[in-house]
Amino acid sequence: MSEGLFITLEGGDGVGKSTQAALLEEWLTGRGRTVVRTREPGGTDAGVEIREIVLHHRGDIAPRAEALLYAADRAHHVATVVRPALARGDVVVQDRYIDSSVAYQGAGRILDAQQIRDLSLWAAEGLLPDLTILLDLDEDTARTRLDSARTRYDRLEAERSDFHARVRAAYLALADEEPERFLVVDAGRPVDDIAAEIRDRLAARV
Amino acid sequence: MSEGLFITLEGGDGVGKSTQAALLEEWLTGRGRTVVRTREPGGTDAGVEIREIVLHHRGDIAPRAEALLYAADRAHHVATVVRPALARGDVVVQDRYIDSSVAYQGAGRILDAQQIRDLSLWAAEGLLPDLTILLDLDEDTARTRLDSARTRYDRLEAERSDFHARVRAAYLALADEEPERFLVVDAGRPVDDIAAEIRDRLAARV
Repeated sequence: MSEGLFITLEGGDGVGKSTQAALLEEWLTGRGRTVVRTREPGGTDAGVEIREIVLHHRGDIAPRAEALLYAADRAHHVATVVRPALARGDVVVQDRYIDSSVAYQGAGRILDAQQIRDLSLWAAEGLLPDLTILLDLDEDTARTRLDSARTRYDRLEAERSDFHARVRAAYLALADEEPERFLVVDAGRPVDDIAAEIRDRLAARV
Repeated sequence: MSEGLFITLEGGDGVGKSTQAALLEEWLTGRGRTVVRTREPGGTDAGVEIREIVLHHRGDIAPRAEALLYAADRAHHVATVVRPALARGDVVVQDRYIDSSVAYQGAGRILDAQQIRDLSLWAAEGLLPDLTILLDLDEDTARTRLDSARTRYDRLEAERSDFHARVRAAYLALADEEPERFLVVDAGRPVDDIAAEIRDRLAARV
């Protein structure tokens, strides 16, 4: 039986996480691995209900409440989806995880990044990814991609662009702190080149 | 202007918290105070949605997720209802608060009580009640009262009776640790006697 592997994709909206997750799943499946594609927030039924509160509640959600809702989603998702999959020896390919919370909630808002990280780690009972792929894109390019793809923004996407700049800087700082866990990819490059770089990093493990 | 006062009512289901809260509100209003009657979970619109997930979601919610959802409800409620009321000089009379989380989640379930307390205090940015009224009732009496009052139990109420015994013990231990904050009342006594005991304790403050 194969060893479970936990891979997360991180980066701002519009950087191509879904595209790379799909290519990665295809490649892993071709190598005989069972892949669980999932996401946070909203990777479980309860998580979908939680995500609905965070993104579409009328009126503001208090900042700490928002952080705790994301953590609740994470706790339920890790306990009921991610850990069981890893225990079966599957590869979990997940859109957003702890680093999103730290980058968006901590650096982007008014809360302390270390507290957000501690909260997430408590929720996940300490589970960190084996590999985190950070798709890094300057915010002007990211905004242009998003504008052309969608006609409607949700609450988070509507935050102003200096918020995105702070999130990007926070992501890059996280990658600097844990170079062994992170693979930072220039998301402005062609899709197939990015996919090849990710496969190179993983080839020894799968 | 009066000084804000934060009073919480604690105890198992069926001990008479709502009855005492109503009598307390009547008495406080008669003394010229503005009273905000509220509750956790579910004291805000967002909190109602959160409570719905905790109590009525199909399938189990992971224990840490449940604790985090209650904390999220608390964070939003304290930030948007309790603190503004206290700042206005109102008296907040609240059904359940941090001690419920510690007694039910920590002692009653598998999670560490100190971690639950830390989580709640982070959610509430450290806000503790000026007075916590613990309505203490042996579990057989409490169960009999609840059986006669309702025909349907929600998920928490359906837990088995040794759970209620552990919750009661946890509450009494909390009261022992903070005797200045707690007023422990024998909830088996007549309603008016209990109300009088609560008023005696508060008379100097309002």
